[in-house]
Amino acid sequence: MSRKTFHLNAFLMGVGHHEAAWRHPRTDAHRVLDVRQFQNLARIAERGKLDSVFFADTLAVGPRIERNTLAVFEPVTLLSAIATATERIGLIATASTSYNEPFNLARKFASLDHISAGRAGWNIVTSGSVDEAYNFGLDAIPEHARRYERAEEFVDVAVALWDSWESEAIVLDTEAGIFADPSRVHTLDYAGERFRVRGPLNSPRGPQGRPLLVQAGSSESGKEFAAHRAEAVFTAQRTVEDGVRFYRDLKSRLAKYGRAEHELKVLPGLVPFIADTVEEAKALEQEFTDLISPDYALRQLSSMLGVDLTAHALDAPLPPLPAESEIQGGKSRFTLVKELAETEDLTVRQLIGKLGGGRGHRTFAGTPEQVADELQTWFEAGAADGFNIMPPYLPGGLEDFVDRVVPILQERGLFRADYESTTLRGHYGLDPVESQFAPRDSRVSA
Amino acid sequence: MSRKTFHLNAFLMGVGHHEAAWRHPRTDAHRVLDVRQFQNLARIAERGKLDSVFFADTLAVGPRIERNTLAVFEPVTLLSAIATATERIGLIATASTSYNEPFNLARKFASLDHISAGRAGWNIVTSGSVDEAYNFGLDAIPEHARRYERAEEFVDVAVALWDSWESEAIVLDTEAGIFADPSRVHTLDYAGERFRVRGPLNSPRGPQGRPLLVQAGSSESGKEFAAHRAEAVFTAQRTVEDGVRFYRDLKSRLAKYGRAEHELKVLPGLVPFIADTVEEAKALEQEFTDLISPDYALRQLSSMLGVDLTAHALDAPLPPLPAESEIQGGKSRFTLVKELAETEDLTVRQLIGKLGGGRGHRTFAGTPEQVADELQTWFEAGAADGFNIMPPYLPGGLEDFVDRVVPILQERGLFRADYESTTLRGHYGLDPVESQFAPRDSRVSA
Repeated sequence: MSRKTFHLNAFLMGVGHHEAAWRHPRTDAHRVLDVRQFQNLARIAERGKLDSVFFADTLAVGPRIERNTLAVFEPVTLLSAIATATERIGLIATASTSYNEPFNLARKFASLDHISAGRAGWNIVTSGSVDEAYNFGLDAIPEHARRYERAEEFVDVAVALWDSWESEAIVLDTEAGIFADPSRVHTLDYAGERFRVRGPLNSPRGPQGRPLLVQAGSSESGKEFAAHRAEAVFTAQRTVEDGVRFYRDLKSRLAKYGRAEHELKVLPGLVPFIADTVEEAKALEQEFTDLISPDYALRQLSSMLGVDLTAHALDAPLPPLPAESEIQGGKSRFTLVKELAETEDLTVRQLIGKLGGGRGHRTFAGTPEQVADELQTWFEAGAADGFNIMPPYLPGGLEDFVDRVVPILQERGLFRADYESTTLRGHYGLDPVESQFAPRDSRVSA
Repeated sequence: MSRKTFHLNAFLMGVGHHEAAWRHPRTDAHRVLDVRQFQNLARIAERGKLDSVFFADTLAVGPRIERNTLAVFEPVTLLSAIATATERIGLIATASTSYNEPFNLARKFASLDHISAGRAGWNIVTSGSVDEAYNFGLDAIPEHARRYERAEEFVDVAVALWDSWESEAIVLDTEAGIFADPSRVHTLDYAGERFRVRGPLNSPRGPQGRPLLVQAGSSESGKEFAAHRAEAVFTAQRTVEDGVRFYRDLKSRLAKYGRAEHELKVLPGLVPFIADTVEEAKALEQEFTDLISPDYALRQLSSMLGVDLTAHALDAPLPPLPAESEIQGGKSRFTLVKELAETEDLTVRQLIGKLGGGRGHRTFAGTPEQVADELQTWFEAGAADGFNIMPPYLPGGLEDFVDRVVPILQERGLFRADYESTTLRGHYGLDPVESQFAPRDSRVSA
């Protein structure tokens, strides 16, 4: 077996992950509306040979209007603009299985894969906020289990649509007037519980066969879905022990789906504050914490927990919370926040400070060496195949990581010195996928 | 009243509008998969100071798999990539009101408007082919009248979502920690027959307020919808007399919606074959006609008419056709084709030849001077506010129009010598739109 490889994704959000990033002098909040900001960030990440950039998304404003920036751009539209400004880095967009049609979603990602010459990835989400439900004709969040059932069926259809064109389907025989070989373009005639789709997709097979499939929910349903479908998982883990437990849990579920461990990469999030000394790094983090607006943070916390805390005292502990089984929104984030507050015995004000950097993802303040040590420790302990780097402020936080931490990882032989592939699947060590409808002898062997 | 202005849109499709374009040596059919082809075409159109480029779309492969190319790219994703390669030209994408959710569509066009700094346009279609219905869980095309009812409600919701952010909503007061003024960000609480959407949109107001609204159906419902909603109309007209009649008809419907005539531009299609002499231009057209594959053309014609003609004799006239009122698909294209065959007494083979260039749009072969004369004649007769130029082959057909015809139009004082605006709405002589929710005193007066 080849040596385990090390992967890095840059998770980009507005002018940084810290909820007060837009107020800090190291950022320019006007840039949340400027596509050039995001093209520039992707170029910085590409300079560091990172595997991919990733954009989250929710289909509602949520509690953010007054006090915080928002994800202005629809991610696929944004990544198409970024694709033309970069050459190698992977491009991962979030899209919801609850509020899209499979045909439209499959088409849009096929377009992005063609436009980027094989760099498209789809972060599959089931949309767990009630604000999203209200924008699509519903009065409540669809039940957690029902959302995952729909997601399973949705992915079946989307994959079949991408597979509806075999890679050899396009003939382009101008003499005979044959554009495509109809025996290699397939209708699905899919008829399931939630979808009926004839196909084929109106886009030929993309360079990767299908986009990289990514997932980020860590509930029981989320882990099972990831084991079945995902090729990369973003996850929030507080300690290396938690990380190892999650990693082993997820990898152990792969065999029953006939999958090998290397076919799914586990990427815990890290919010790094980087400076020349640990004292400076901690002081920098504190500058951001001091800018948190408690009324916004309370609304944000209420939204994460699905419990209204806006009238709750800041210096009291959390009120009693429901069991995870009663939660219909995002279960894993709920439990993470609840456990953090309980195990560290935090007041709401302290909890808000801890969550400000990355909404529950691990925050780490230190020197470039210390950040590299931290990543190496997790990687070598078997808690990670790589990391989801969440710069607290942008572009500076990404520049510091790329220009100061990545060279250390490269020097230690942990991370690639240059790209060895042209596609996102290739960066993550995966082969292009042949159509499920292709004759066996034409399939690429794995 | 100011002098009537003259507008030009480039309607781009694959390697050209002629159905056999991909087989002709003047094209390279591989380029239908290459985003750089489309970026290059848009740059050529921008060199000619054209108002806009436009991409059609259908949500199915239709009868095209074997014998013809297809629209590979989802138009908004494609136009985002084109936006970053151009600076001034407008970018119009087709999207369906029958098979999208208003929230998703409004978001995507808001993104494109931000990414392009105010150059987004939406060609509103109701999707009249049964192949599309099959990809979205239906067994038949939804009734023509129902599709237009849904389109009316859909546009109401989309416009309200774009209006949910006033242009002054973003405050960005980093000191006080105020990102947006909540009194200028509006929920809709829209509850209609087909949609319930709370809002607001998760994207601040775009530079144009809302995208340019474009429409292309010329049936009775289509014309009424256009008079109510559209700011530009693409239409297929066979003669200048037909064109004048359509133009007067459409403009006369505006007053009842409180709209002025200049608020809707009528743009008939033209497929120009351009050469140094009329003989060479006609010979060039014949080269393309000779490459038509009759079996593909019969399937294409069957799809346009909603009647299976694949077993019909090529040298016989059309069989008796149903009345327009019985057609549930695209009514105006049906009637155009039927009337063309009847008035010119054509066999199916002859009809196929006539339709090959632009699916019923007027084809014209001549010198650059003659093409310019033709456009001037229609414009001055009151049949057009400008034209939807449909190059039969690409990029050559567009280059000839831009480099040989546009300079003549500029010399005659008909067409702009340079852009006078930075937005698509500006090119078409329209103001940015203020939110319907904005206080009266903050609205921009027209």
